[in-house]
Amino acid sequence: MTYCVGMLIDSGIVMMSDTRTNAGVDNVSTFRKMFHWSVEDDRVITLLTAGNLATTQSVLSQLEERNKAPAERHNSLLEAPTMFQVATQVGKLLNDTIAAQRAEHGQEGSDKMFQASIIVAGQIKGMEPRLFLVYPEGNFIEASFDTPYFQIGETKYGRPILVRGYSRDMSFEDAIKLVLVSFDSTIKANLSVGPPLDLLVMERDNFLPVHRRRIGADDPYFRAVSVGWGEALRRAFHDLPDYEMADEHAPVP
Amino acid sequence: MTYCVGMLIDSGIVMMSDTRTNAGVDNVSTFRKMFHWSVEDDRVITLLTAGNLATTQSVLSQLEERNKAPAERHNSLLEAPTMFQVATQVGKLLNDTIAAQRAEHGQEGSDKMFQASIIVAGQIKGMEPRLFLVYPEGNFIEASFDTPYFQIGETKYGRPILVRGYSRDMSFEDAIKLVLVSFDSTIKANLSVGPPLDLLVMERDNFLPVHRRRIGADDPYFRAVSVGWGEALRRAFHDLPDYEMADEHAPVP
Repeated sequence: MTYCVGMLIDSGIVMMSDTRTNAGVDNVSTFRKMFHWSVEDDRVITLLTAGNLATTQSVLSQLEERNKAPAERHNSLLEAPTMFQVATQVGKLLNDTIAAQRAEHGQEGSDKMFQASIIVAGQIKGMEPRLFLVYPEGNFIEASFDTPYFQIGETKYGRPILVRGYSRDMSFEDAIKLVLVSFDSTIKANLSVGPPLDLLVMERDNFLPVHRRRIGADDPYFRAVSVGWGEALRRAFHDLPDYEMADEHAPVP
Repeated sequence: MTYCVGMLIDSGIVMMSDTRTNAGVDNVSTFRKMFHWSVEDDRVITLLTAGNLATTQSVLSQLEERNKAPAERHNSLLEAPTMFQVATQVGKLLNDTIAAQRAEHGQEGSDKMFQASIIVAGQIKGMEPRLFLVYPEGNFIEASFDTPYFQIGETKYGRPILVRGYSRDMSFEDAIKLVLVSFDSTIKANLSVGPPLDLLVMERDNFLPVHRRRIGADDPYFRAVSVGWGEALRRAFHDLPDYEMADEHAPVP
């Protein structure tokens, strides 16, 4: 599995991904699922990938034209005029890659084989920061402040805290803390999501990531959040009003 | 969908189910998914059901022999010598019901068609309270204090708080509060899980439920938990240490 979150706030976009991949629980590896490119004073683009690793690595290799000699490579995302066109290009490559694999394998396997999803986020100078979720079919949806974050991979365990904790005017620091709590809940529940976690922060109108790091399982802040969240939840739970079993209640149908 | 939880604590067993069923989001109904029987000073048995409603209603009807005249009906669960045999009987009926439907429909539809799962809990005099999860195949697993609760239906949204909040020596009141918080997180995330909620508490060595009620969406305690939990989570989140974007960090690979 995988867990990735892209979150839009007023100040910019926070992106986080785990790095665990598995082909069965007896075959677990670490692979980067976050990729970013910056052109100074022009654009910053970040992708988060989930799904079939061969598919997502192939999409990335094609984006960077790794079949060519290094000097001749050329990433068309860096020349797309809008983030909408960036998402369109990623979607087309993703769908073509999946379709090519399926064409070779015919009716073997299920519909889900070779599938992947990609979160695309970034900003091009003169335009707003934008956040997209690209489906395996190549089409995509865009985040707005009605639905200001996208999750891919194992999305359920970490969703309730995002729903409760998000506000668009939160600081980057609070947004990072919120996303880390969401990752902690997911990691505790699903073995196939695991650290290290990759974090990248894109500030509005700043075309270099303002913050970027890898957070290991033994990172002191991550450990403080993980342990502290357990204690904070227990206090929060204790603070709720107590149930009264002796109350008068509605009759049971 | 559905959400049901059966939770074993030192004092007994707490059971909760939602009542929403749906055949598409445009066809939503309310059906009971909790069923219980008591024989004074002898046994108490409760079932929670998830999955295909025709399957689970058929299993219940067969258990209660509703094809016979009321006076001739006879529920064999009330004469099973052990809870293990209760779970075995429920499993056999469940598997036979699914198999009969599939036999009629051959290769139409998917493997998941007609499937259902059942949580079986109760106590027979002279033995311990026991909690089982019965699979569609009719086999089952039993809870222990390593894994003291079972969830069926939409299990993921409500799991993190159970993982963090459970302790075997908690009171019935705290266990009910914990399960309600878990239901609230699930209801907020999945439209196909909804109130009213059915609650039943079986106290160790007491063969009548000590508490049983239906909790509506407008129940004052449920509303207090729902609103209070949002606020308590925000306080808990605020209490966590703040992230420092300016920290020295490990290099990004």
